[in-house]
Amino acid sequence: MALASVIGIGSTRYGILPSSFIELIIEAATEALVDAGLGPDDIDAFYLGNFAGDAFIGQNHLASYAASALGLQGVPSTRVEGACASGSLAIREAIFAIKSGLYKRVLVVGAEKMSSLPTAGVTGVLAQASHFELEVKAGLTFPAVFALVAQRHMHRYGTTREQLAAVAVKNHDHALLNPKAHMQKKIKLEDVCSCTTMVAEPLNRFDCSLISDGASAMVLCAPELVEDYRSDVIDIIGSGQASGQFEIFLNEELTSFPATRLAAERAYQMAKIEPNAIDFAEVHDCFTIAEIVATEDLGFFKPGEGGIAALEDHTRIGGRLPINPSGGLKAKGHPVGSTGVGQGVEVITQLRGQAGNRQIKNAKIGLTHNLGGSGGTCTVHIYQRR
Amino acid sequence: MALASVIGIGSTRYGILPSSFIELIIEAATEALVDAGLGPDDIDAFYLGNFAGDAFIGQNHLASYAASALGLQGVPSTRVEGACASGSLAIREAIFAIKSGLYKRVLVVGAEKMSSLPTAGVTGVLAQASHFELEVKAGLTFPAVFALVAQRHMHRYGTTREQLAAVAVKNHDHALLNPKAHMQKKIKLEDVCSCTTMVAEPLNRFDCSLISDGASAMVLCAPELVEDYRSDVIDIIGSGQASGQFEIFLNEELTSFPATRLAAERAYQMAKIEPNAIDFAEVHDCFTIAEIVATEDLGFFKPGEGGIAALEDHTRIGGRLPINPSGGLKAKGHPVGSTGVGQGVEVITQLRGQAGNRQIKNAKIGLTHNLGGSGGTCTVHIYQRR
Repeated sequence: MALASVIGIGSTRYGILPSSFIELIIEAATEALVDAGLGPDDIDAFYLGNFAGDAFIGQNHLASYAASALGLQGVPSTRVEGACASGSLAIREAIFAIKSGLYKRVLVVGAEKMSSLPTAGVTGVLAQASHFELEVKAGLTFPAVFALVAQRHMHRYGTTREQLAAVAVKNHDHALLNPKAHMQKKIKLEDVCSCTTMVAEPLNRFDCSLISDGASAMVLCAPELVEDYRSDVIDIIGSGQASGQFEIFLNEELTSFPATRLAAERAYQMAKIEPNAIDFAEVHDCFTIAEIVATEDLGFFKPGEGGIAALEDHTRIGGRLPINPSGGLKAKGHPVGSTGVGQGVEVITQLRGQAGNRQIKNAKIGLTHNLGGSGGTCTVHIYQRR
Repeated sequence: MALASVIGIGSTRYGILPSSFIELIIEAATEALVDAGLGPDDIDAFYLGNFAGDAFIGQNHLASYAASALGLQGVPSTRVEGACASGSLAIREAIFAIKSGLYKRVLVVGAEKMSSLPTAGVTGVLAQASHFELEVKAGLTFPAVFALVAQRHMHRYGTTREQLAAVAVKNHDHALLNPKAHMQKKIKLEDVCSCTTMVAEPLNRFDCSLISDGASAMVLCAPELVEDYRSDVIDIIGSGQASGQFEIFLNEELTSFPATRLAAERAYQMAKIEPNAIDFAEVHDCFTIAEIVATEDLGFFKPGEGGIAALEDHTRIGGRLPINPSGGLKAKGHPVGSTGVGQGVEVITQLRGQAGNRQIKNAKIGLTHNLGGSGGTCTVHIYQRR
C-alpha cells in the first residue's frame, strides 16, 4: 500500500519575482487545488515548508499567516523547518497525518521569498543553516563547505573540473525546456571550465545554485480514496529521512553524506525496490559537486563514478538515468523552502506525462532527494505511477 | 485507543538562565530520556518545537543542530513552528508519526532562549507572530492585542480589574509551589489593581507573562507498547488543532478565540468526553485576560463567567477546577517554543501524582491549551491516567 497519493500539483515560476511571499503561496496552492478539483473547504490539514521567512520578509508564524490568506480558516496549519530540506519535511508530515488515519486530504506548500534581501544578506541567512558559532564565524559558509567536498572528491576519485562543469551545462540545458525555471541560458563546457569568477575554489559561479523566489504545492490524499478524485494516480511509495552530523567537521569523510545514504536506504526499503528501479530523479544540486555526490549516495553510480556519468551524458534527458530534468536547483532555481516540494512537482509532472519538451519517456518511478545544511537533514521520496 | 502514551518527561527550570539554547535542550531531553529509561539509540524520530531561534540566537536548522548535540545521528529530526503554540504542534506531529505506525518511540522537545536579546528586541521578534505589515506597524503588538480583548470583555460582560488581578495572584501563588517556575514572588490583589506601570490599558505589568528561557521534553510511544516501559501510564486521548483569523481585526468578536473553541471541540470529540470531565488544565495565559477567555472557550465556564470563577478561587489548586497549577505562562514563565511541551509536562506530573506541594488530588484527566499569535494557531490536548 502506498503511503499517500497525489491528487494535485502547482508551482509558480522560480526566479526573482515581483510577487510577495503570500502571493507566491496563493499562486502555487490555488494551482494545486484546481488541479485536484478541490476548494479550501475540502482540505483537512495544511503544512508549510519554509526555512527563514522571518529573516527574509520580517514575518513569522507563517503557516497561520498563509492559511488565513488561503481561506483555510479552521484548518490545522503547521510550519515545518529543516533548512533547504524544509519542503520535503512538510511532505513527510503530510504523509504521517494521512497515514495516521486522522486526515484525508492534506495541502502541502513549500515557499521562500529570498530576493527581499541583498545577496550578502541572503548569504548570512543561509549560513544559519550550518553551525554558526563553529563554522560560519570561521568563514565556512555553504560555498566553502561544498568546495571542501569537491576538493576531497577530486583528490580521492580523480573527479575533474570538466565533470563538475558537465552537471552545470546539463542542468542549464534542461532548464531551457522548463518554462518555470529561473535560469534560461545555454552555457558551454569550456566557458564553465575557464570561468575565473571563483566563489570557493574549485567552485566558480557556474557551479552554484541560484537565489530564487518561488512556491510549489501539492495535495495529498489517502491512497484508498484517490480514485474518487482522479484517474492518473501517482503514489508516494517510499519516504526516508535521516539526520547527519550538523557540523561538517565531525564527518569522517567528505565525499559522501551519510544521511543521504540512510534516508535512501529507508525509502528504498519502504518502497521495496532497489536503486536500479528508479527511472529518473530530482536531486539536491545546490552545487555541481552535490549532484555528483548525491547520485553516488543514492546508489545510482558507484562512488567516484558520478562525475564520469555526468560527463558521458548518462544523466541527461534521453540518457540512461536522467537527473534533474527540471533544471535542478542549479538552473530551475532554489527558493529554499520550496525546493523539496518543487522536486516532487517535477517528478509527478513527469510521471503523469505532462512534462512537454522535457518529458522522460516511459517514466514509471521517480525519486527526489533533498538535503539541508551540510547534510544535517536529508530526505528521499519515491513516487510511482499507479 | 489512545493516540499515544507518555513514557518520559523532563524540563529545565524556566527563567533568565545562564544555559545556552543547546544546553537547555540537552538538560530537558536527557531528563525525559532517563525518566523513560531510554537512550538516544532507542529514539525513532525527534520533533523540536521552536518559534524563532534564528532571531534569538542567530542559529537556524535547529532540529538538526539539536539532534547532533543529543547524539541522535540518523534519527529523522524536524522543527515545527506555530508561534507560541510551536511546542504543542511538535507534540501533534509526534502523535501523527506514532499513529501512522511508522515510528514507535518519539522524542519531543520545546525550547526557546529569549534572554539573548534585550527586551525591546524580544518584543520585536514576538511581534512577527502577528501580521507585521497590517498590525505591528500600526502599533498592535501583543500587549495591545490582548488589551483590546480585555477592554471588549469588560465592556460586554462586566469583567473587572479585580477579576484580571485574581488570575495573576493565583498563578503567582501556584508558581511558589513549583520549584521550576520563573517567578517566585507572592503578589496581592490590591497591588495588582493599583499598579500604575501600564503596558497597554487595562493591562499593567502584573497582567503580562514573562520573557523566559527554558526547554521541556517528553518521550511518546505507541499505546500498545507502553507497558514495556513503565507501569504509571499516561495516555494522550485527544488532540485538536485549529487555525483562526491571522489578523485580529478580521474577527467578528474579540471576547472569544474561535480557533480555541474549534480545537477544543475536536479534542473532546476525539477523547469522547465533555468539558466537565476535565479535572484541571494548563491554559495559555500569556496575559491574565487570555486565561479568562480560554476557560470560557474551553467550556469550563460560560462566556463572561471566567473572571468571576477566578475571583471566587474556583480555579485555584484545591478549587473546583484548578487552572495553571504550574503557575502558567504568567508565573511559571513563557519560553515560547517550550510552553506547549511544558504544559504537557505539568499535566503528566500531576496525573502521575508527582507534583509535590502543588499536587491536585485525584487528578485523572488533564487538558492543555496552547495559543499562537492572535489566535491564529490553537491546540488542545487531553491526557488521561490509565
